[in-house]
Amino acid sequence: MSVINRRWVLASRPNGQPALENFRLEEQELPDPGAHEILIHARYFSVDPGMRSRLSSDSYAAALKEGELIEGAMVGVVQASNNEKFAAGDLVTGGFGWQEYALSNGRGVAKLNASLFQPPLTVTTAIGILGIPGLTSYFGLLDLGKPQEGNTVLISSAAGPVGATAGQIAKLKGCRAVGIAGSQAKCDYVVKELGFDACINYKEVDDLQAAIAEHCPDKVDIYFDNVGGEMLDAAILNMNEKGRLIISGAVSEYNKSEPRGIRNTLHFITHRLRMEGLVVYDYFKRFPEAQAEMAGWISTGRLKFTEDISEGIEGAPAAFIGLFEGENHGRRLIKVS
Amino acid sequence: MSVINRRWVLASRPNGQPALENFRLEEQELPDPGAHEILIHARYFSVDPGMRSRLSSDSYAAALKEGELIEGAMVGVVQASNNEKFAAGDLVTGGFGWQEYALSNGRGVAKLNASLFQPPLTVTTAIGILGIPGLTSYFGLLDLGKPQEGNTVLISSAAGPVGATAGQIAKLKGCRAVGIAGSQAKCDYVVKELGFDACINYKEVDDLQAAIAEHCPDKVDIYFDNVGGEMLDAAILNMNEKGRLIISGAVSEYNKSEPRGIRNTLHFITHRLRMEGLVVYDYFKRFPEAQAEMAGWISTGRLKFTEDISEGIEGAPAAFIGLFEGENHGRRLIKVS
Repeated sequence: MSVINRRWVLASRPNGQPALENFRLEEQELPDPGAHEILIHARYFSVDPGMRSRLSSDSYAAALKEGELIEGAMVGVVQASNNEKFAAGDLVTGGFGWQEYALSNGRGVAKLNASLFQPPLTVTTAIGILGIPGLTSYFGLLDLGKPQEGNTVLISSAAGPVGATAGQIAKLKGCRAVGIAGSQAKCDYVVKELGFDACINYKEVDDLQAAIAEHCPDKVDIYFDNVGGEMLDAAILNMNEKGRLIISGAVSEYNKSEPRGIRNTLHFITHRLRMEGLVVYDYFKRFPEAQAEMAGWISTGRLKFTEDISEGIEGAPAAFIGLFEGENHGRRLIKVS
Repeated sequence: MSVINRRWVLASRPNGQPALENFRLEEQELPDPGAHEILIHARYFSVDPGMRSRLSSDSYAAALKEGELIEGAMVGVVQASNNEKFAAGDLVTGGFGWQEYALSNGRGVAKLNASLFQPPLTVTTAIGILGIPGLTSYFGLLDLGKPQEGNTVLISSAAGPVGATAGQIAKLKGCRAVGIAGSQAKCDYVVKELGFDACINYKEVDDLQAAIAEHCPDKVDIYFDNVGGEMLDAAILNMNEKGRLIISGAVSEYNKSEPRGIRNTLHFITHRLRMEGLVVYDYFKRFPEAQAEMAGWISTGRLKFTEDISEGIEGAPAAFIGLFEGENHGRRLIKVS
């Protein structure tokens, strides 16, 4: 009872902004699961801006090869299992990419507690606020940022899934949360719906450094960065002494063949700043503790999230490309029909 | 019994490389010490590359004003005291700048234990290896770098007073120490005299990134940086995951009106790097513990140092300018005649 799987693979490497022709939709016949294998039927998968760096052949060791499956997080249901740890019907999640089915030996597959995913916690949260983006916000802000009550926390891509969660956790910890986003609608969302103290629409300001200074009168103790480049440089000039810069993403850099980077490294000496990159998988053992705490915040209405769901695997590349044009609002997911 | 003091002040701000006309030698008559004051007669003061950033009117709050005394560390002898904590003849150190005499209320003055400064510990070490440069190496490497036995430590300006000490402490902690310096003579010094495992003469390599890779086959766990810019970028691309970058100085940036900075910020995410700026005064309370440990290493021949001493206050600006031309070898001090 083999199945026909459709999956998106890398057709060619983008040079700068990714385009539709960089992706190819393939059909493959998947055999029945072998010994210890399971067959997962996708319900949803994610399209993530951070995946952009995997498409380039720079020195990043884990770059995708042409013809390889595009990476993404999946939540799905076990359709058939020869692995004693899983049974048909189990709800599971893992990094199984942009495809309809996945065969796995069980490694890297997390079985979800289905009873947890009751309203307001939908199954999609397993690859959203309770998945990698939300965990990135949680461990980045709390472990690297070490927020103290009264700190000012500045967050770029504030309306995106990572930034929105980071800002709300900052508020839960008694901090002032100031967002940076690319439209008035996004700014209204983070201030009025998520409770940020302020938000800067960077497309409407001439001098971002001055705008940050205006909205952060006590300067910035923690900068949670998803953008990099000029925005990171503007934040550096507004940091308090001993400020922490959390490098969670760099959406302004992913599509550049020559990165811009930052100019203001001298401020690291004069203001004894610390800048640290985050890979959330380093915290793998603490995921359940973080998910339980965040689920509690969600259930009591103290932590909100928005998802941006497109239907149909065919649209995945366009949905991905749109991320770099700022068109998404919330975590972007593909519902597999 | 007033004294005539000669002192160097800022005449004009340098635009790029500092020049002799940016400095002016003034004479002033100093009154007798007032209540609680002491008069210090300088024996030596230091000319430091890090002082360059104090000459610029950028956003660094502590920039010197025109007409103000040029900053430097001094070791001297108390000539007269109205302060119960000090007596005539005491050996003292502090940040009293480029001048022959200093009047002080005693704040920021450290009284030295004269018995400590016996051969091989000369009085100059109080503003050298047991002063700010050596303490910078000590706390930067040990507290920010957290070296583990077997780590590879890369050090720029390896023949300078900070780098030379950092590399030797790395060796004392069981690490592989690889230097970067600007001449074969400097490289020979750090390898043959100080015991570094290797040294790259960056002026003789076409591709610094490749040269670092060649000399650091297990990649770099700790980069102790005194240079910034392109050299920092080349180091970033050679870091191991969870590598630590200690920003102690940025001699390549101080004289630029537009800083270069770094391009490779994406590596902070892919390799979860940490970059941190160091201000050694944050460790003020632990200075005696560090000085005692380093004095022990020096006395047993395990920690070496070189000083580059010019005689006469008149030559201080030229000695300072020469630092940026790489002409010094070891800590540069002025002996006050």
